[in-house]
Amino acid sequence: MSAVEDIPTPQVVIDQDVLERNITRMAAHVRETSLRLRPHAKTHKVLQIADRQLAAGAAGLTVATIGEAEVFADHGVDDLFIAYPLWLTRPQAERLRRLSAKARVSVGLDSVEGAQTMGAALNGAAGEIAVLVEVDSGHHRSGVSPGLAVEVAQAAHRAGLLVEGVFTFPGHSYAPGMPQQAVEQEQAALAEAAELLTAAGHNVSRRSGGSTPTATLTGSSVATEVRPGVYVFCDAQQLELGRCTWDDIALTVAATVVSRTDTGRGSPRRLVLDSGSKVLGTDRSAWATGHGRLIDHPDARITALSEHHATVVWPEGSPLPALGERLRVVPNHVCVTMNLVDDVAVVSGGQLVDRWAVAARGKNS
Amino acid sequence: MSAVEDIPTPQVVIDQDVLERNITRMAAHVRETSLRLRPHAKTHKVLQIADRQLAAGAAGLTVATIGEAEVFADHGVDDLFIAYPLWLTRPQAERLRRLSAKARVSVGLDSVEGAQTMGAALNGAAGEIAVLVEVDSGHHRSGVSPGLAVEVAQAAHRAGLLVEGVFTFPGHSYAPGMPQQAVEQEQAALAEAAELLTAAGHNVSRRSGGSTPTATLTGSSVATEVRPGVYVFCDAQQLELGRCTWDDIALTVAATVVSRTDTGRGSPRRLVLDSGSKVLGTDRSAWATGHGRLIDHPDARITALSEHHATVVWPEGSPLPALGERLRVVPNHVCVTMNLVDDVAVVSGGQLVDRWAVAARGKNS
Repeated sequence: MSAVEDIPTPQVVIDQDVLERNITRMAAHVRETSLRLRPHAKTHKVLQIADRQLAAGAAGLTVATIGEAEVFADHGVDDLFIAYPLWLTRPQAERLRRLSAKARVSVGLDSVEGAQTMGAALNGAAGEIAVLVEVDSGHHRSGVSPGLAVEVAQAAHRAGLLVEGVFTFPGHSYAPGMPQQAVEQEQAALAEAAELLTAAGHNVSRRSGGSTPTATLTGSSVATEVRPGVYVFCDAQQLELGRCTWDDIALTVAATVVSRTDTGRGSPRRLVLDSGSKVLGTDRSAWATGHGRLIDHPDARITALSEHHATVVWPEGSPLPALGERLRVVPNHVCVTMNLVDDVAVVSGGQLVDRWAVAARGKNS
Repeated sequence: MSAVEDIPTPQVVIDQDVLERNITRMAAHVRETSLRLRPHAKTHKVLQIADRQLAAGAAGLTVATIGEAEVFADHGVDDLFIAYPLWLTRPQAERLRRLSAKARVSVGLDSVEGAQTMGAALNGAAGEIAVLVEVDSGHHRSGVSPGLAVEVAQAAHRAGLLVEGVFTFPGHSYAPGMPQQAVEQEQAALAEAAELLTAAGHNVSRRSGGSTPTATLTGSSVATEVRPGVYVFCDAQQLELGRCTWDDIALTVAATVVSRTDTGRGSPRRLVLDSGSKVLGTDRSAWATGHGRLIDHPDARITALSEHHATVVWPEGSPLPALGERLRVVPNHVCVTMNLVDDVAVVSGGQLVDRWAVAARGKNS
């Protein structure tokens, strides 16, 4: 296997030691709080990382699509939650049915019509699929109010589906100062929905929440499981939110300085890396300092991104890297980065030790 | 082959009729102005589309990376320009050498050090690689000032490379009201660099510019070739820039309404599509109206995007689509969308007629 510095750039590099530490730490936290951990595998899409999460005690995996579920079920993962309000066509129902022969499958729902459609499409197989009703806890994306959750559960039950609980995604936790408030709203929404569903005679033994910003703030008084995803790698977004430190960064993109300006035009101290949006992704929150960070140069700012160029403004007083020098970029949002590449380089103790395929990359449906 | 409406969503769909009309129209325009057309294939990455561009008279293709060049050279494309300031390592030099046995290869350079490194890495094969010096015409990304272009050409010549001209990318044309100004700056920069290089005794027979917003504004007084990419599909960005019409949109993403809010919470008329950032991409200019457009509902706005959800605010007075209904989304930036999917559905006259692989997807190096 060639050395790290011989790999053509841009290249996603996973530090296996940091990755394993992140996996162990989250598993230990969740064990302490008696929650069950069901990591969101859409972040990494990698079989070898799923194996490590399950070995550390995860109760199963969360995925976003039937296609992702198929990849992990074929690998032998036997408990999969598709945390998404599926609108089930007949061909998808057939896939879900085949999936349920390989693994325990639960899915999301957030409408009466969705429940009816799912029941009809699954036909006799509806009873094999467990359903969690999605509740909106303040992110205002999908999910219903706790009051409407009862109607959805009712419809699911009538359609022959197995109601098992409620879930929510506190996506509004991805903003400075928001994680604590988001976790309180999440727990309140889950509690209210669980109470109403229980009163209406439904099973709510699963109450699922959690994102990477909130997972370690979640107690077990209401939720029974959490679904963090990004924690395995961390990223510039989590760093700038204060939800991880530089030492927790397990994923970087190796990039080469291909162009730089230090004369003429009166421009600032600017260089261009070959890690553009086609490897970093363009996700950028309003509060982000740029399009990612440089792990060895915290004061540098990635001010612009095009498909194959990242423009970096270099801090005053710090020597501008030479052309051809390699830098390590921390993407803003690792879920996007992993979905852009077919495989990743794996290092341990600074040595290249493996390559992992991004097995569920691009499985959007 | 299944019907269009049976394809699982989200799914990228190419309208072959519109695609071919776009290809023919750009080819005709460029022929009229006596420019040569060298379309940027990073937009589509599809062999079948490259074939159509070449059949319509393109002089060759532009690509962004050695990996993209390899895919098209293996398909038989015999003239390829890697429009990027390559920093050549030895393994990459070896690939470039092999590439030059299959096709006429030209590459970009924007530094003396880049030229020296390339010459050394290519060793005896340097003379097989033609070089265009990249000039900055106002986009302020890579590229040097026209004055410095002479030094780069000099260094390339000394390194044994074949200097053939200059190129620029007027990326600042991607803003309202900017295309005309950008094309003037582009022509001025190319003219100044060409004059200085000629005076220094270099060959500048190729003077390459052009982006989709500027290509049809470019005359042949300075430039000898243009490199538009997006024109084959158009996208919401070109539409909102006024550089294409709704009728020119050849690429849409078929999406399903999976969630909607029309009761409770006092929220606006809001629905969620299953076409998130993992198929649309998150590119969004400051002046964009949202994260893409709906081709059949021009007044709807895509206000938020997460990985598998597009949140749409529906216009007042227009009936909210039903759950399960399919809508067609026009991405903001098609180059990003094509790089997210492994294949695309092809329709003609409303019928599904083919599937094309995105052969050069993910070839970032």
